[in-house]
Amino acid sequence: MTVPPAAVPHATGPHAAAGTTAAADATAPFATGPHPPRFPGAAPGRPTLDSWQEAPDNRWAFSNLGELLPMATISRHPAPASGFSNLDGLGMPDLAARLDATHTDAFLVLHGTEVVAEHYRPGFAPDQLHLLMSVSKSLCGLVVGSLVDDGLVDPARPVTDYVPELAGSVYDGPTVQHVLDMQIAIDYREEYTDPTSEVQTHDRSAGWRSRLASDPWDDYAFLTTLRGSGRTGEFQYCSANTDVLAWAIERVTGLRYSEALSARLWSRLGADRDAAISVDRSGFGFPNAGVCTTARDLARVGRLVLDGGLATGGRVVSSDWTDAILAGGSTDAMTDEGWTASFPNGSYTRQWWCTGNERGNVSAIGIHGQNLWLDPRTDSVIVKLSAWPEPDTDQWHDRQTALLLDVCAALD
Amino acid sequence: MTVPPAAVPHATGPHAAAGTTAAADATAPFATGPHPPRFPGAAPGRPTLDSWQEAPDNRWAFSNLGELLPMATISRHPAPASGFSNLDGLGMPDLAARLDATHTDAFLVLHGTEVVAEHYRPGFAPDQLHLLMSVSKSLCGLVVGSLVDDGLVDPARPVTDYVPELAGSVYDGPTVQHVLDMQIAIDYREEYTDPTSEVQTHDRSAGWRSRLASDPWDDYAFLTTLRGSGRTGEFQYCSANTDVLAWAIERVTGLRYSEALSARLWSRLGADRDAAISVDRSGFGFPNAGVCTTARDLARVGRLVLDGGLATGGRVVSSDWTDAILAGGSTDAMTDEGWTASFPNGSYTRQWWCTGNERGNVSAIGIHGQNLWLDPRTDSVIVKLSAWPEPDTDQWHDRQTALLLDVCAALD
Repeated sequence: MTVPPAAVPHATGPHAAAGTTAAADATAPFATGPHPPRFPGAAPGRPTLDSWQEAPDNRWAFSNLGELLPMATISRHPAPASGFSNLDGLGMPDLAARLDATHTDAFLVLHGTEVVAEHYRPGFAPDQLHLLMSVSKSLCGLVVGSLVDDGLVDPARPVTDYVPELAGSVYDGPTVQHVLDMQIAIDYREEYTDPTSEVQTHDRSAGWRSRLASDPWDDYAFLTTLRGSGRTGEFQYCSANTDVLAWAIERVTGLRYSEALSARLWSRLGADRDAAISVDRSGFGFPNAGVCTTARDLARVGRLVLDGGLATGGRVVSSDWTDAILAGGSTDAMTDEGWTASFPNGSYTRQWWCTGNERGNVSAIGIHGQNLWLDPRTDSVIVKLSAWPEPDTDQWHDRQTALLLDVCAALD
Repeated sequence: MTVPPAAVPHATGPHAAAGTTAAADATAPFATGPHPPRFPGAAPGRPTLDSWQEAPDNRWAFSNLGELLPMATISRHPAPASGFSNLDGLGMPDLAARLDATHTDAFLVLHGTEVVAEHYRPGFAPDQLHLLMSVSKSLCGLVVGSLVDDGLVDPARPVTDYVPELAGSVYDGPTVQHVLDMQIAIDYREEYTDPTSEVQTHDRSAGWRSRLASDPWDDYAFLTTLRGSGRTGEFQYCSANTDVLAWAIERVTGLRYSEALSARLWSRLGADRDAAISVDRSGFGFPNAGVCTTARDLARVGRLVLDGGLATGGRVVSSDWTDAILAGGSTDAMTDEGWTASFPNGSYTRQWWCTGNERGNVSAIGIHGQNLWLDPRTDSVIVKLSAWPEPDTDQWHDRQTALLLDVCAALD
């Protein structure tokens, strides 16, 4: 599993000198790099909002305008999406009301390979993309797994072997496995509604909120600013970890994160639709939260984890990797009281939440009610995409978890 | 064709008092309005970049993230689009080289209903959307035509009857027909590469370039700032005219422009794919330039104009309207020397360029080499989507026009 240094293009490549350290001014343009270009030959950081109409940037931009500007759909369908509901197969008479009460946009249950329940709110439909929030993280974890399988990433190596720009940051020391399992002490408050918390600076750096003048140039630059004790071995949920993994993925593959997600996961999934990911001003996908997919395609991701890494379009990851997810991580390391209150044997590994319950449930979880929930006992996948009015209170999580467990019980 | 005032919801509706005049501060939030909301019940101007994660905006936003943030595609295909070329049917041995030399991304010739030539550069493909630039204008003109057919718009009425907020601007006086035919004297320089020209302020107001503090809040507000003699009867190409038409379309239909384009055109086209349109911070599509479509679907638009307004999915517009386009507009009014140098009997009407040549060619035209070119003599449609390095020099236009005319001759 050891990788010779030459397998890490950036560390030894011709552009290595362009790499910066955390001492660089993260508010300066293109403070980090090089990064995979948006198109062959693109200048660093281009196209920008002010360059895209000019040659040579315009050729790529005219063919990829949605990467630069917000876009509305001009539907080819005469009527707006009207939703539909088919929940009879589960025999839960109160399910529709519970889905509604938990602000569900899409809900799907896959028992084996059969869709036994599917529900969309009015105005949403099976062919529409929904934001996954932190369910996005678990997709990133699978891509890392595929690179580990191929010997391109060694989880035991320091993450700075792959992203030298993180030298001097809190990531100077921890291994890739520490990042995967979120076992690093970081001065990063994941308080979504607190404007002074680091998660909001992270949002602003990635284009998810209006920028302040003092904000880092982009998400890459934000990551280099993170500090903390860096002590490892204890769980701390931190969204920045996923973005560090994605940066490493870019360095190892030479692809943009959006391209690597396609090459390593989405193109092997047998997906109905392209997925999408929000991008910052440098074109870096927002790996920890920005992926949007249909409910049906997301269910296919759950299916491949239950199927030992094999998807309709090919193998995504080894069964060793999916076995490790389903087995769960270190319960000693787990310190999230919300999680252990529900699941005393709960853990987190490889960007997935593991319940450690009798059923062996494992889930990808995102704020505001996103779940890709696996039930190995019945070989089932439950997708629930929601829009809770609050990001992640215990009350909402408890209500959602109870619903998911009741659906599992209905499948027994 | 006269419409009673009650058919114009805004002018007499309960929100009429909320309308502002051009005297309002166009840099203030939501200086104009009301506008069709992005979702039922949305507060004016919402969601914003800072509100979309909060209830109630988050429900719509999580299902429509691409309207708020730039997004990259995560392709379900294993390989990037590789282009293809099938030009043999035209018998023009130098055509591929000429397409390449004119920076062609997509090229398609429809002879009757048969595709007799199709060509995509490497990295672009038939299912991808390409920016239309001002070909977008001609689509808007067809939507206006459909509303005229239905008696909802009277071209002879002042445009301020439909958009009272334009009172006090240069649009206070001209009729809808003047706007359609671009026969209004406006202090608006369409100098794409001049940062002091009004077209760049327009771009910035619509989110196409980085904002300056003094810029109008959004595209609507920009339109209210326009001044000039307002003298009518002489052609002046001005992109703002199309956005005024789209604003009137919103008022008459109660739909967002993107929705009206779907309801009145795209959903009747038999389109392969949804189209898209860039939106400003208020969610207003950029009608004069921001539409993106596949080459094949754009050819369908040309087809319906040649077919008297009838598309695969139903009638879009009356044959009266398409006849008027194909007949051409006023040659007396035409003052564009670039156009008359090529086409002495040239004109512009209903957002289409009319050559007045023996073949009766009519075209939608966009900067950087976009054409939807109609050849009535052979019942053919030519689509050419390009990325010229310069926006609209005579040299590039002449080269492109020569190519299009040679293709027409090859179809004889």
